[in-house]
Amino acid sequence: MNIDDLRFDDRGLITCVVQQHDTGEVLMVAWMSRESVRLTLETGTTWFWSRSRQELWNKGATSGNMQRVIELRADCDADTLLALVDSPGPACHTGNRTCFFNALEAE
Amino acid sequence: MNIDDLRFDDRGLITCVVQQHDTGEVLMVAWMSRESVRLTLETGTTWFWSRSRQELWNKGATSGNMQRVIELRADCDADTLLALVDSPGPACHTGNRTCFFNALEAE
Repeated sequence: MNIDDLRFDDRGLITCVVQQHDTGEVLMVAWMSRESVRLTLETGTTWFWSRSRQELWNKGATSGNMQRVIELRADCDADTLLALVDSPGPACHTGNRTCFFNALEAE
Repeated sequence: MNIDDLRFDDRGLITCVVQQHDTGEVLMVAWMSRESVRLTLETGTTWFWSRSRQELWNKGATSGNMQRVIELRADCDADTLLALVDSPGPACHTGNRTCFFNALEAE
């Protein structure tokens, strides 16, 4: 499967789940454009599309917490990606290892 | 954090990543509406919103491959969910254990 098989949404974006390859931790979920998928495959580091800033974003380029991509996978209907990465530092902008640190409680 | 803290998108939906709680396998990604989040918390099994069928969907209710929810987490900006589940059977409609069985190759 390659980039031409992917189904981007009407904004030209696809959801990407980022997982630490060895521990299995789900670190974050972000959006990729076609160009960010291409850059991720080409550079071996994660590139996303920031909807708020409307720009490409090489994760960790400023903080130093880059994510090295071990494998990029697509799901069965090719509209979601899973990036298996090695992320030595925190993935969350809060400084947490993962963005998923809040348990949801019943009301 | 509870359901009122979640940020649903303009369609009233939120992305949910489903992960096997002990092995760390990412099984699937699907959409939840407010009502499906509520049912997931209430019943302890995963409920999603099917965009194609425009209806609530209790995963595995027909196949018997229900997903028992161990914990539901929200990410740092409360617009994505992570469901830690026990899913004894295949999660993918293709019969695969996980929907993410396609590696993406560079062009």
